[in-house]
Order: sequence, then structure tokens, then C-alpha cells
Amino acid sequence: MQSHLISRRSLIKSSLIGLACSAAPAIRAAEKDDWTETYDVVIIGSGFAGLAAAYSALENGVKSVLVLEKMNVFGGNSCINGGQISLAGSGLQKSKGIKDSPKLMEEDMLRVGQRLNHPALVKAVVKESPACYDMMVKCGVKFADQVIRLGGHSAPRTIFAENYSGGGICVPMHNWLKERGVEFRNKSFCSAVLTDKDGVVRGVEVEGQYDFDKKTHKNTYKVQAVKGVIFATGGWGADNEFISASTPQYSTLESTSQKGATSESVRMLLGLGAMPVLLDIYQVGPWATPDEFGAGAASIFADYIFAEGIMVDARNGKRFVNELASRRERSEAEMKCVDQQGKPVMPFGFCSEKTTVNRPGFKASFREGTVKKFDTVEALAKFYGAPLEPLKQQIAEWNKMVAAGKDELFGRPLDRRVELKAPFYAMRFWPKLHYCMGGIGINDQAQVISTKTCKPIPRLYAAGEITGGVHGLDRLGSCSSTDCLAMGRIAGRSVAANL
Amino acid sequence: MQSHLISRRSLIKSSLIGLACSAAPAIRAAEKDDWTETYDVVIIGSGFAGLAAAYSALENGVKSVLVLEKMNVFGGNSCINGGQISLAGSGLQKSKGIKDSPKLMEEDMLRVGQRLNHPALVKAVVKESPACYDMMVKCGVKFADQVIRLGGHSAPRTIFAENYSGGGICVPMHNWLKERGVEFRNKSFCSAVLTDKDGVVRGVEVEGQYDFDKKTHKNTYKVQAVKGVIFATGGWGADNEFISASTPQYSTLESTSQKGATSESVRMLLGLGAMPVLLDIYQVGPWATPDEFGAGAASIFADYIFAEGIMVDARNGKRFVNELASRRERSEAEMKCVDQQGKPVMPFGFCSEKTTVNRPGFKASFREGTVKKFDTVEALAKFYGAPLEPLKQQIAEWNKMVAAGKDELFGRPLDRRVELKAPFYAMRFWPKLHYCMGGIGINDQAQVISTKTCKPIPRLYAAGEITGGVHGLDRLGSCSSTDCLAMGRIAGRSVAANL
Repeated sequence: MQSHLISRRSLIKSSLIGLACSAAPAIRAAEKDDWTETYDVVIIGSGFAGLAAAYSALENGVKSVLVLEKMNVFGGNSCINGGQISLAGSGLQKSKGIKDSPKLMEEDMLRVGQRLNHPALVKAVVKESPACYDMMVKCGVKFADQVIRLGGHSAPRTIFAENYSGGGICVPMHNWLKERGVEFRNKSFCSAVLTDKDGVVRGVEVEGQYDFDKKTHKNTYKVQAVKGVIFATGGWGADNEFISASTPQYSTLESTSQKGATSESVRMLLGLGAMPVLLDIYQVGPWATPDEFGAGAASIFADYIFAEGIMVDARNGKRFVNELASRRERSEAEMKCVDQQGKPVMPFGFCSEKTTVNRPGFKASFREGTVKKFDTVEALAKFYGAPLEPLKQQIAEWNKMVAAGKDELFGRPLDRRVELKAPFYAMRFWPKLHYCMGGIGINDQAQVISTKTCKPIPRLYAAGEITGGVHGLDRLGSCSSTDCLAMGRIAGRSVAANL
Repeated sequence: MQSHLISRRSLIKSSLIGLACSAAPAIRAAEKDDWTETYDVVIIGSGFAGLAAAYSALENGVKSVLVLEKMNVFGGNSCINGGQISLAGSGLQKSKGIKDSPKLMEEDMLRVGQRLNHPALVKAVVKESPACYDMMVKCGVKFADQVIRLGGHSAPRTIFAENYSGGGICVPMHNWLKERGVEFRNKSFCSAVLTDKDGVVRGVEVEGQYDFDKKTHKNTYKVQAVKGVIFATGGWGADNEFISASTPQYSTLESTSQKGATSESVRMLLGLGAMPVLLDIYQVGPWATPDEFGAGAASIFADYIFAEGIMVDARNGKRFVNELASRRERSEAEMKCVDQQGKPVMPFGFCSEKTTVNRPGFKASFREGTVKKFDTVEALAKFYGAPLEPLKQQIAEWNKMVAAGKDELFGRPLDRRVELKAPFYAMRFWPKLHYCMGGIGINDQAQVISTKTCKPIPRLYAAGEITGGVHGLDRLGSCSSTDCLAMGRIAGRSVAANL
């Protein structure tokens, strides 16, 4: 399988604005004795949530598990994240004598989510988090010997895969599960959920040898899922057509997700009557640039521009936001930089040479040409199409505020006082969709809730980014991994127990 | 019809937590020549949005319009609101020489909505708003001779029906339309949307002589809608079962809406594949009390308690929030007052006698017993079950802060410095659901968007509180009326034009 596991680099290269909504997926009646194959459990999606669900299903006595992945490569977005995960009470945390509690982590998640989280889901995920650590260790995942306190967390509780990549978690788990008989099938698109006349989910229809780019397939077959079907298909941030229809104000936004992050599953489940929960709430990254794929080196260096440089509106050469405001606030401010027709006039940010020294992300983004060097303010203004005099004035004003230690305009904290002077290092900014905060509604047993009955849809489960409610309106860094792994485990347990 | 128009009083009396989700409404195929009746346009719901849609359909040449209302009385929540509406450029505004612009009102709505509004919808509603004034005047609506600037609005643009009630708008419009041949039918529940094999909406199934309380009906018939069907059914704030399933953290909240504000229509449209937009975002009122129905006199007086008194946690006798924080913040703080089992321990607020003098809402709420008088702090503590000594201490601390002019604890502005001393006037608080911010996704032609195709569902339109996107995450006072009337007008025009 190693050959199928995607590299971060190759995957983010293809994460441009997604293809059009594919043909609408369907819900069809399951006809008797029409099955090509039978498994106890079918899992759609092979990232963290799918892997954890498969692990937990096996652990709870399920005999046969099929994991379907529509893409050529396994692992989805989980494989290209930073391999960090926050756990309240992991073995590693305990070994370092760190004090933490589930209650504290729950409260952190609720506060950041502005209490639009579903409390029972937060509680279930946090409670399950130490077991996620044990599971990963058992599967052979190696962790760096550190526990970090990330922004917004009240305790050090974030651990890292040894290679600082989600692949460092996906690969060992995938291999461990495969050795124990879990069937993994790539290029396999779930084209329909099959239900009986009472609405009980009985299996899925699969398009085999599926080519995501061409939207073609070689064969179609039906798989019976005796115990149930688990959707662990992730988000749809790369699906520009769906996002433009549901959230038109984001129609100009590219995504940090891999190109397979499209909406087929979420639309299929809505069609089945699944409850939408904060479905059109997204985490949007103001540190993104259109000049690299996804979130690369420049997105990392951007934080240093925000802390020591300034960001200006190319239409008038002026600052327009506190560069350290909340993600949402900065993103909204960037998106207001449009022309009369509403087309983006992307703002740019820049800093002095001093800011570039030994700063993560700088070397790579400069080498790739995403961050550019300008020897004079004239060159800077010309390249980004900003009016020269106002830009000069802005720089002079900023330097005065830096000297005084106070941002009179937007109240940005000035802990790091760095004068702006040529040569300048600059990049363009435009937000990218980073995470689908909402999705399909589930209860704390990972059962999908129906809008028709206000109760679970029998034998249908979901976990991870395709669901909504765990994070509310916004989420803490690394808690998406916690959600996927913990709720995946819960889904596996529920399906095993015939819940 | 006068006899059917509900009084504010009688309606809010029945706005307790709603009945269970009714039987799931259905989408069924339209069979040929199976129609009992035929109209050009069928409108579901008889509040502002439905009335404006009917008006506009007529104005644009539609020959026959049927308006269905499931309740015994016409007018829905529109009839029990305060009869206020904000318009950018109304004739009344112009006559007073007030400067305003659509751009300014749009920006106000986007700012308050935290830019989760759909910009094209905001633009369309604001642009249509002056025409709403002309329409109401033409129908004989009488307005008070004033234009007020409400909180959050950048200009005076809010006008009031002469009787300060939505009924002052609904009644004349209803009568005007009826005189011109619009057919209004109460106790008529739309039990299914009927589509042809291509998914084009062809009509509706109606349960006649529908009894909302008993969920019974006498007959069922099918109405063909030659040009289309408009959903103007309002919100579902009184549907506790649906809200508990989609937004469990609000399961203890009653509603300020009339009892008919339930979820049948929104669930029917979701089942038809309508796009959910901010569906589970609600406006929640921290000024509500469980001791009166809906939002009555005590809810009005509550603002004076917040400004000159304090609110304390009954569990410990202490203040727990800035009593003038945002609605959302205060509501969330109130909802945190629960016991170990998560059951509400409702906080209470109180003020001195000085605060009661000539204050709106006081007399009625005191007469009704919602606001109570306590001669001593001992009596106050005992009645609400708060510990006496901490409460005494809290009052002393507060009075010190009032004297100093600074709220050291929560930074509440202390413009009005009133010492707390017996006798006290007090009431309990628990938030109520006031408005469904989100709902069904539409475009700026009021066409319902499909999750299956990312395009409009042919011949299906929606307007008003059942839709999402106009207001974003929160809304300005009186802009719901604007939304209903303006988008209703747009829906009527679209259906007339066969869009």
C-alpha cells in the first residue's frame, strides 16, 4: 500500500478549486438477493475516522470490514495534515506529569465553538481521546517525545506523529488493519446507499475502477452491509460548485484540502434525510495565498508577516485590518478587497529582511517564488498595482507606530517591534477554506439523525469532518484529528453492537 | 376575516414548548389529471411573506392565487409582532428628509450578520424595501408619523404600523387581497409537495379542516399550481422535538413564537432536496422568563433590570455575566446555570423600586405576578433558593462598584448608577428561541436551491423566516419584517414570470 499513500506535496499540488458537482448520488431501494458481496460493515473513506472505525469494529468482534476509497490513494486529508492530535489524558501526557482533565478540554472546545457545539458530542469525543492514543500505539504509530500546549488549549495536550505528518498515523494503522483482514479498496466510489422499504440501510452501490478526474468507472456492484454502513468521507472544501450554491460569499475561495474533498457523500446523506448541523459553517484561513497550492510554506511564513510586517489593500496602499485579529475577522476583511464588479483585488503583506531570518516557511516559499523580494518601495507598489504615495505614507505611519509601540489604527499588539525598510519580502493573500465545521448530524453513538423522524436512521453511522456539532462555530488546532479518531472509534463500536 | 385574526394576547398564551414533530410530511409524485382544483399559484402561509407574495403575483398579472394556512387563524407570527419594519428609502423616510441609502442598510445587515449573510439576498431585500412601503400604503395600512433609529441601524429607517402591531399590516393587506379575488383558506395543511418525474413542482396535497392541536383532518385533496408553489410558512421555534434533534443544546428553550411555528414545511422541503442554509442558527432572547408566555411585558421590563439592577446565579447568589453583553453571550451564560444532571437552575434578576417608576412593561408584569416584590433580601434569597450570605455580599459589592462607577467584574457600562436596596423587584430568567436565523436556501429570485443539482428546484419558491441567508448569524431589530415583505414580493414576481 505504501505506493498508494499520497505525499503531502503531490496531494496539495492538485487542490485547486474543485470540479463541478458530480452527478447527484442516489438513494435506491435494496432489492433482495441482488448483492455481489457481503460484509459485516462497510466504511466509506480511509482517513483517520475510517481507520479508527475499522479498528474499533474489529476490536468489538466484527468479522469482516470493507473500506472504500474513491481516490487512487488512501488516507484523504488525514494523510496530509501535520500529524498532531490533542488528547486529554493520553499515556504520553501522563508520563510527563501534565495535569489536564476531560472537563477542561470540553470547556476549551465549547468556548472556541461559541457553544454552538452539541455538548454530548464534545463529551463523547474527549472521553474517548485517551483510548485513541492507546490504539495508535498498538498499531505501531511512533510519536515525538513532546506534549505541546497549542493556542486556545488550557493545558499541554497536543502530541505529534514522529514524522510530523498525518501519514505517520495513517500508514501504520492502515497496515495493521490490513494484516488483520480488513479489505481496503481504492478507486471505489460509493454511488448509492441502499435501504429497505422501512428505510433501514442495507448496503451500498459501488462504482469500481473509479477515475475521480474523469468521473468514469468500469463496473458497478452492490455490497451488502449486514451490520451497517459508516460514512467517514471527510469534508468538501474543494467542491466549489456546492460551496457556491450553499455559501455564495465563499465562491472565490480555494481550499487547503486535497482535490477529493468534494460533496458527493454529504449530498447523498442529505438526500436520505440526514439532519444538517451547521452545514455551511467553514473555517477559513486568512494566512492563505493563491500563489501556492493548499496551505504550504508561504502559509506558515505568513504568520511572521502578520506579527512583524503589515498587510495592505492593493486598491489604496493602506492597512485594513488588525493583522493579528481572529481568523474569521481577517478573512472577512481580505474578502472585502474587491473591485466594482465584486472581483478580488487581492491584498498583499510584506516585511523587512530581519523578519525572514530563520523563520519557518521562509526559505521554501522564497525559493518557490511565492514570497518575493523587492529592493525598493517603488518596485513593491508597481508589482502589486498599489498607488505609490499612499503606500510610502503607510510605511512611514507604521514605522512611527512601531517606534511608539502602539497601533493607533487597529490596536494590534506590538510585542515584536520591527521597523519596515527595504528590501521588502512580500506575498499576496486570499483566504482558503480550511475545514468544514459542520455537516451531518449524529448523536453521541455516531448514529446519523433523520430530519424525517428526529431519530437515528437505522444502521447508518458517520464520523469525522463529514459530521457537524463536535466543534461548533470554530475549532481548536489539532482537535479535528481527535474528533475523527474518537468518533470513528465510537462508530465502530456502535455498528458492532447493532445500535 | 376579522374574527379569525388572532390577538397578540391569545396567541402568545399558547406558545409553550411545541408539540412533538408531527407525522413526517411527504414528497409524492403528481399523477396526471388527479387534481381537485387548479390555481396559477399556491402560497403556503398567510403572514407577511405570503401576503406580499400574493400582492406581487396579482400585480404581475397572475389570475388566481390560493393561500393556505394550517392554523385556525391567519397571519402567523407576523400578526403578533410589534408592527415595525425597516426600509431604506421609504416615502415616510423621504418626507422627513432623512438621509439613508441601500448601501448603508446592506452594510448594517452584513456587519450584524457577521458576514455569514448571502450578499445577493441582502442586496435584493434592501433594494425592494421602498416598494414594500408603497404596497402597504396601497393596501390601506396606516403608519405612525415617525421614523426611528433602532439599535444597530446607521440611520432612522424603522416605521411602525399605527397600532404598533403586525396585525395593523396583516389585516388591511389580507382584506385588500381578498377583495381582489385571492382565496384564503384556514385550517388547511399542506401535507405533500407534488412533483412530476423530472422533479418539477406541480402542486400540493392539502389536508382540509385540519386541527393543529389534534393533528386531525376531514378530507384530503390535490391542488394543481400551474405557475408554482411559494413557501412562506415562517419559522419553527416552537417545535421542541425538531430543535432538540438538530440543536440539542437548546432543548430546554421555549419560544416566543405562536404554537404553529413548527417544522413540517422545512422538513418537507429538506426531503425534496432543498439546500439548508444556517439551518440551526437561532436568535435567542436572554430577556425571556418562563413565567410568562412568549415575550410579554416582563421581557420588556427585563431591559431595565439589566441596565440598573443585577442578575445572579441562584446556585451561589453571584453575578455571572455582564448584564448588557450581547444577546448570544447573555443567553449562553444563563444556559450554563444547571445542576449536576444538567437541569436548569434558573437565574434571577432584581432591581430597586427606583427602577420601576414609569418603566415600560413594569405595571403589567407586576400585576401578572411575573415580576415580584420582596421587602427584604432574606425574602428574595428564600424565594429563589439562593444562599443568603453570598447574595448579601453580592449586593454590597455591587453597590460599591456603582458608587465607584466601575464594574470591576465584567466591565458593564455604568451609565445609570442606581444603588440596590430593598424593596427589590425580581424575576426569573431563561432564554427563549426568538427567531430562526437560517432555513431553506434561495437565490435572489426567491427560487429554492437544490442540494442535488446546486440549481433551483423548478417552480418552487420560498420567502421569509423559512429561508436562510438574508440575515447571517444575527439580525437587526425589525429587519425580519423587511425580509418577509421584500422577499415575498420577489417570490410573487418570479412565479408570475415563470422563472
